[in-house]
Amino acid sequence: MTIRTLIWHEHRHEKKNKLVAQLYPQGMHGALKKAYEGHKEFSVGHALLDDDAEHGLSQKRLDETDVLLWWGHVAHGEVKDEIVERVAKRVWEGMGLIVLHSGHFSKIFKRLMGTPCSLKWREAGENERVWVLNRNHPIAAGLPEHVLIEHEEMYGEPFAIPEPLETVFISWFEGGEVFRSGVTYQRGAGKVFYFRPGHEAYPTYHNPQVLQIIRNATRWAYNPEPAWTGINDAPNVPHDKAPVPLEIKGPSLHAYGEEGYR
Amino acid sequence: MTIRTLIWHEHRHEKKNKLVAQLYPQGMHGALKKAYEGHKEFSVGHALLDDDAEHGLSQKRLDETDVLLWWGHVAHGEVKDEIVERVAKRVWEGMGLIVLHSGHFSKIFKRLMGTPCSLKWREAGENERVWVLNRNHPIAAGLPEHVLIEHEEMYGEPFAIPEPLETVFISWFEGGEVFRSGVTYQRGAGKVFYFRPGHEAYPTYHNPQVLQIIRNATRWAYNPEPAWTGINDAPNVPHDKAPVPLEIKGPSLHAYGEEGYR
Amino acid sequence: MTIRTLIWHEHRHEKKNKLVAQLYPQGMHGALKKAYEGHKEFSVGHALLDDDAEHGLSQKRLDETDVLLWWGHVAHGEVKDEIVERVAKRVWEGMGLIVLHSGHFSKIFKRLMGTPCSLKWREAGENERVWVLNRNHPIAAGLPEHVLIEHEEMYGEPFAIPEPLETVFISWFEGGEVFRSGVTYQRGAGKVFYFRPGHEAYPTYHNPQVLQIIRNATRWAYNPEPAWTGINDAPNVPHDKAPVPLEIKGPSLHAYGEEGYR
Amino acid sequence: MTIRTLIWHEHRHEKKNKLVAQLYPQGMHGALKKAYEGHKEFSVGHALLDDDAEHGLSQKRLDETDVLLWWGHVAHGEVKDEIVERVAKRVWEGMGLIVLHSGHFSKIFKRLMGTPCSLKWREAGENERVWVLNRNHPIAAGLPEHVLIEHEEMYGEPFAIPEPLETVFISWFEGGEVFRSGVTYQRGAGKVFYFRPGHEAYPTYHNPQVLQIIRNATRWAYNPEPAWTGINDAPNVPHDKAPVPLEIKGPSLHAYGEEGYR
Repeated sequence: MTIRTLIWHEHRHEKKNKLVAQLYPQGMHGALKKAYEGHKEFSVGHALLDDDAEHGLSQKRLDETDVLLWWGHVAHGEVKDEIVERVAKRVWEGMGLIVLHSGHFSKIFKRLMGTPCSLKWREAGENERVWVLNRNHPIAAGLPEHVLIEHEEMYGEPFAIPEPLETVFISWFEGGEVFRSGVTYQRGAGKVFYFRPGHEAYPTYHNPQVLQIIRNATRWAYNPEPAWTGINDAPNVPHDKAPVPLEIKGPSLHAYGEEGYR
Repeated sequence: MTIRTLIWHEHRHEKKNKLVAQLYPQGMHGALKKAYEGHKEFSVGHALLDDDAEHGLSQKRLDETDVLLWWGHVAHGEVKDEIVERVAKRVWEGMGLIVLHSGHFSKIFKRLMGTPCSLKWREAGENERVWVLNRNHPIAAGLPEHVLIEHEEMYGEPFAIPEPLETVFISWFEGGEVFRSGVTYQRGAGKVFYFRPGHEAYPTYHNPQVLQIIRNATRWAYNPEPAWTGINDAPNVPHDKAPVPLEIKGPSLHAYGEEGYR
Repeated sequence: MTIRTLIWHEHRHEKKNKLVAQLYPQGMHGALKKAYEGHKEFSVGHALLDDDAEHGLSQKRLDETDVLLWWGHVAHGEVKDEIVERVAKRVWEGMGLIVLHSGHFSKIFKRLMGTPCSLKWREAGENERVWVLNRNHPIAAGLPEHVLIEHEEMYGEPFAIPEPLETVFISWFEGGEVFRSGVTYQRGAGKVFYFRPGHEAYPTYHNPQVLQIIRNATRWAYNPEPAWTGINDAPNVPHDKAPVPLEIKGPSLHAYGEEGYR
Repeated sequence: MTIRTLIWHEHRHEKKNKLVAQLYPQGMHGALKKAYEGHKEFSVGHALLDDDAEHGLSQKRLDETDVLLWWGHVAHGEVKDEIVERVAKRVWEGMGLIVLHSGHFSKIFKRLMGTPCSLKWREAGENERVWVLNRNHPIAAGLPEHVLIEHEEMYGEPFAIPEPLETVFISWFEGGEVFRSGVTYQRGAGKVFYFRPGHEAYPTYHNPQVLQIIRNATRWAYNPEPAWTGINDAPNVPHDKAPVPLEIKGPSLHAYGEEGYR
């Protein structure tokens, strides 16, 4: 078993901002890769917004991806709608998706949630305490009761997301706010995990516990079943092919076996 | 208290198909209106796809709507994306939404679910039995154990929707399939109910129990609170305005009080 | 419409501890009653652990109750199992239940949750900030973004409850912990709301916003439908009374129309 | 990795009823064991109601069990409450639990659900069609769109359970009813799966697809994390040991570091 992991990164801050470049000399994607070092069940690559006209996310690349990580911030609007739809379809087919930090406002996360995904925020380098709600949840495996992150951007409730399937983490911030920092969803055959920490101005992705959560989440999001490629189909099951074959009663608008409207 | 109810209808089948025109001489929206007759807490109007360039859904009209019903089928693609976004925003602000039957493939339902919303189907006039899971749920108030619909189109699982907040009804079909026929969601401040029955070739919307469910659901979806108009905002809470005022620690990328990226 | 509200209170601290007696001269139940003053849709009574051999919760009393509030702490173990079962059955039938603060360890809450309902705690008079997740939720109606309680006991995660249907409030504590302070459940026909604040050593139940939440929750928990008295039954539906009448195929262990095993 | 699986069986029908004895010459537990044959990651044992005074479920046995299966029917009442509590605690600590068929009325399932778990039923040997809602769910791995069981007992809605975390299967019955046949829950650290089929008068547990579901569910329910043995504790976190150390403000009822009331 190999979990084919792809880290998608906007990769703009590192180029424009010295501070971020110093914190993440190999890019934030480079730091995130370290989450998997020494763990042989993963194969890990990356794709960047500016890689090519498809943001590094060709159909082939996505078809060969089991779990996709997503970090974006200043350039959400530059991600093409067509690529967003492509990613969404792969999630529905069974690809896992881990959305990180400012990715809450990415097109793909909003697309899959169906809500604004808005929140409060503050950049003051305050303490964040990420509390574990169920220490035996696969995403929390091996963690202490809470993870302290010395400096982080604050994200505060209300976080305009659908009621999660599971709330895995809740964060406490020094300035007085709280936030659902780890939440899970199912979209079609795909598992989705949103994980809050990761502001570009702080060394969050060098924190071993943060990396451990991301590695755990990658395992959790992995679905070994064959892709559910037909999940968008709306097949007609004609009367004589029904599990219990039928005679047609009453009037019909559709011809035998025809395709439905979409 | 008045629940301002708006029935949005595609209204194409009635114009093109004699059978549908005979079944619904006042349009399906006309039949749906009868759900509210004699119930004074509702004011009821309708809007049709071809009403005007906004499909009858001006911002003003939506702002004055508490609960919107949606029936569409052959012309999902003609609904403008801009209007879909407008409706979605009103749902997030607190407007209730009841999506009917073939509306499962409407842009607005797919937009709010974040999934394909696909299903199996068959038009054979077979029996549908809509089973009530919690007879004290407001949407099921006053119903028997199950509602028998003599002739209906079959919709079969898998129905590619997110795990519902509540499953209110499950349907049995003569041909052997089952379907989650009544499911609830919360999207922002708005309540969403999907209700399966209502094929245009059958007199389903003349069935008093079906109308009772739709009336119940309208009451359930009504939210008397003021619209959450700021739900799309992502306010910056500066360090000195934090619930617990802070000194800034560490570096910053954002200026004091600036707006975030979207 | 009248919402028949019954406040059940252990009422032991007030008798044994001067401080609590001074804070709550009419008992905590007396303070909680003020939540409903001036709101005519409620009729409000109370029942105390030591009222009588049934803790004031005769079958008749419960049958005439729409929403029950529960505050207990030092004497959870004195509540008779038989009364707990009686209350549980009334919840399943449709009675609303609001469990307050230390009631997390009451027999009735643990009975309905099926989990330990354990948590961390600290009595240090620290600030609690109760954050609202969906300001249009009926339980949060009219509240500001968060409710500040000057002095409260801390309850911290992990709170060993099932994943809630809805998380309405999350609390921030001065000492660094977080807690899911308002969570909803459905049990049979009955709605259950757990609300955290209310330590006996502090004047929490004199706080108007806390009382507003409790009043809101009472309205939310009210189910006007007739009691689902048969919810414990497991009726046999004989083959000839099936919705689709059947011939019996294969062997049988049960006689026609007999009752099942329990 | 070995998934230590324990099949608990009431084992009464086989002794009293010739038909059941013929269908299951090695007991229903013997048939269930075949689910794991040839799959080396499982070690499988069984425990029977009449094994000993603890129904074969000593603390040691449970501590060495990763996933427990439960089949009971006529003798639910004979299972000792003390053993039920022991099993519940192991589930909260992380042991998986798979409850089969008539086990819906077992003490342990009702204990963990907090609801009556009642349903409708009929023994007429009718067809059951178990529909898969998400074909990529680990419990549904490798299945066709639906599993046909030629002869089964009917269980019909309403099934008085809490809203499931996930609905994995819904059954269609020839006589007109539907049922949520596969539902998941989380209770503490433990995963719970209820699976409907398995009437003792029919050869259901010789059906390879039924066994496949049970094997899949065993894998799904397995939690490799160390047991959460302290899940019942309610630790006091004193003011000076708080994540953010505090001074005590206001009055106190509890002494420093004392245990809370239960």
